[in-house]
Amino acid sequence: MNIIRYPKKEEWTGIIERPHMDVSSLNATVTAILDDVKTRGDKAIIEYEERFDHAQLASLTVTEEEMNEAEKLVSVNLKDAITLAHHNIKVFHESQRFDCRKVETQPGVTCWQKSVAIERVGLYIPGGTAPLFSTVLMLATPAKIAGCKDIILCTPPDRSGRVNPAILMAAKVAGVSHIFKAGGVQAIGAMAYGTESIPKVYKIFGPGNQYVMAAKQQVSLHDVAIDMPAGPSEVCVIADETANACFVAADLLSQAEHGTDSQVMMITTSEQMTSKVKAEIGRQLDMLPRKDIAAKTLENSRLILVDNIQDAIDLSNAYAPEHLIIQTDNYEDVAEKITNAGSVFLGKYACESAGDYASGTNHTLPTHGYAAAYSGVNLDSYCRKITFQHITAEGVRRIGPAVETMAAAESLDAHKNAMTVRMKSLEG
Amino acid sequence: MNIIRYPKKEEWTGIIERPHMDVSSLNATVTAILDDVKTRGDKAIIEYEERFDHAQLASLTVTEEEMNEAEKLVSVNLKDAITLAHHNIKVFHESQRFDCRKVETQPGVTCWQKSVAIERVGLYIPGGTAPLFSTVLMLATPAKIAGCKDIILCTPPDRSGRVNPAILMAAKVAGVSHIFKAGGVQAIGAMAYGTESIPKVYKIFGPGNQYVMAAKQQVSLHDVAIDMPAGPSEVCVIADETANACFVAADLLSQAEHGTDSQVMMITTSEQMTSKVKAEIGRQLDMLPRKDIAAKTLENSRLILVDNIQDAIDLSNAYAPEHLIIQTDNYEDVAEKITNAGSVFLGKYACESAGDYASGTNHTLPTHGYAAAYSGVNLDSYCRKITFQHITAEGVRRIGPAVETMAAAESLDAHKNAMTVRMKSLEG
Repeated sequence: MNIIRYPKKEEWTGIIERPHMDVSSLNATVTAILDDVKTRGDKAIIEYEERFDHAQLASLTVTEEEMNEAEKLVSVNLKDAITLAHHNIKVFHESQRFDCRKVETQPGVTCWQKSVAIERVGLYIPGGTAPLFSTVLMLATPAKIAGCKDIILCTPPDRSGRVNPAILMAAKVAGVSHIFKAGGVQAIGAMAYGTESIPKVYKIFGPGNQYVMAAKQQVSLHDVAIDMPAGPSEVCVIADETANACFVAADLLSQAEHGTDSQVMMITTSEQMTSKVKAEIGRQLDMLPRKDIAAKTLENSRLILVDNIQDAIDLSNAYAPEHLIIQTDNYEDVAEKITNAGSVFLGKYACESAGDYASGTNHTLPTHGYAAAYSGVNLDSYCRKITFQHITAEGVRRIGPAVETMAAAESLDAHKNAMTVRMKSLEG
Repeated sequence: MNIIRYPKKEEWTGIIERPHMDVSSLNATVTAILDDVKTRGDKAIIEYEERFDHAQLASLTVTEEEMNEAEKLVSVNLKDAITLAHHNIKVFHESQRFDCRKVETQPGVTCWQKSVAIERVGLYIPGGTAPLFSTVLMLATPAKIAGCKDIILCTPPDRSGRVNPAILMAAKVAGVSHIFKAGGVQAIGAMAYGTESIPKVYKIFGPGNQYVMAAKQQVSLHDVAIDMPAGPSEVCVIADETANACFVAADLLSQAEHGTDSQVMMITTSEQMTSKVKAEIGRQLDMLPRKDIAAKTLENSRLILVDNIQDAIDLSNAYAPEHLIIQTDNYEDVAEKITNAGSVFLGKYACESAGDYASGTNHTLPTHGYAAAYSGVNLDSYCRKITFQHITAEGVRRIGPAVETMAAAESLDAHKNAMTVRMKSLEG
């Protein structure tokens, strides 16, 4: 752990710098697979699944039978947990529904927005040792609430050609329409272009390794929208002398176990808190099964001591963390001043893992400083706001002359004429 | 004009197909300029301005003096028109403000979203023979309402090194913070990386030629968010036998004059309307200064005759037009069924040019079928929704066990532990 004491503001840029991410060296490999999927469809997918996931597949579709079987394999405990988490995510995302307001900008000129679901969305859930069923809930629940007609999910099978039962269970609870056995670049290609089995979607959501990231970037240039650019996960904790060092250490460790590229940062106004948290980390680290990963991540972590709480806020806003935990006495005042973050956790009981799983907020959030420009996944991510306008004769009289003048000044006479013919029809 | 009579549904895909757009052949040129701007800053911009815009610039900044001078050069008429348009755009985009709702997903678990403006945004306004001051209003007005602290505008100067006065006037009315003389790829690079004069922004908005499009794509992969992918402008008119052929023809022509790559389409249930509109186009075309461009565009335009209004709606939704004008008797019923479009114009008086300039809706809209996944520019485009959560001891008791179970099932024990230490602190 790097302890940085009272850095000058000139040093901030260096402190908050993230490692450079560049997936462009993978572009040639990724392009080749994408092109192949575009040309050969299912056949290409089946071959790549054999090559990369060592699974021999006769069909890409997860059957009703497999769904029923999965349900039996998930423990009652986990089923209950998934159901509770789904309930909370549902309640929060349902509260994000958009209310249409019609506005008369001039007498006779009425404008409004209507929120309409994206018809077909694709969710990608990576494979690996641990099944990310929580991400299934996070991505599919708002899609269902938005009213997306088709919710497609692609995830790689294991060597026996099966999908983890917890993933299938979560997909069922959250309302996924169709599940396919496909992973990596080939899954992204399938959803971007469509194959015989897998329908083309209009927007792709979900995490993945560097190849998946590169594939999402490539297809987003022409073929399909994506949720947001991706980067390693990160947490920033703002703590004052009232923080609970044991809780703070546990929060930092929970981020550190994700992977050695994870970003872990604490900003504190208390000299004492720095040493207390450091000691707690040492104590808790030993008990973790993934302690090797966490220990390696912590080598690059930063505990930063600042003069006052305003500096802590400014430094955090400059960093724009994916997750921000505020453990201070006056956390509501601090929260008011946060301008750049993905998701913010308030008070000593709000740990990041609460939001990762079950509080109701979404865990698909902007990393790598993207929080300065992007929101995390929310109900809006699955909708478009279409604008409507209705104009009466009175409306034409009110804005017609301005439209004519502006169109003429932009040398667009046909634009002007479209208004002129309407104004003339009202004369006499 | 291509008149297509009662096409079968199998033929629809061919009818609505847009020309393939690929700016990747420009990538090498664009990368070279971007890299140069990144390395040499203002110096590079000044050189490219001389090379591409034939302007010799001592400074990139538009001065207070130049602003005042511009105001005197704009006619009272145009000033009034800009003021009226700005008022309407302001009223509509102000109505889009987000109301925060706090939600208790479980007793003691409170979640909410807060809409926070992107701190610094960049607007690009292309040069050319006609000054696109209307786009200045469309991009800067919502930025100002959102509360963006810095609203940067880049636009190329003319050969004398000056910016068109109508652009400066519109920028002043809409609340742009700083205006710089820079065009094309070099302007996009300047806003993406920052130079000595031009600050780095977090999101870039605005139209441009193919080089600008390619540059926006490139910088969006790593450095900055962009409004949306771009393509040629397009209109679709749905008309029944009650439509006014003169108005419809004027609307189709107003799209046709944009450029020869513009897309123009009418879908009608009335055989008669097809011939009436065709005749009206012939009559009106002759009077247009840009008739050569419009005539060329019309060669690729499509007048499509369908069996019934439902087919018209389905075909339009499959096309996902940027602008959709509905001139039918029961336009409100038709509007209810529109699922893919950028902006919709209802009733015979609602011409596209009303929305292009002054009704209050935004004219920066998704083209090229992107309306299936993207919204047009609106207040949300300038904001992020940051999520917050507050959890009490009661909240921990409610969701703690589920978080522990799910974290364990995903093999993330440190995630589990962050909840366990809090649950333990509540025991006894």
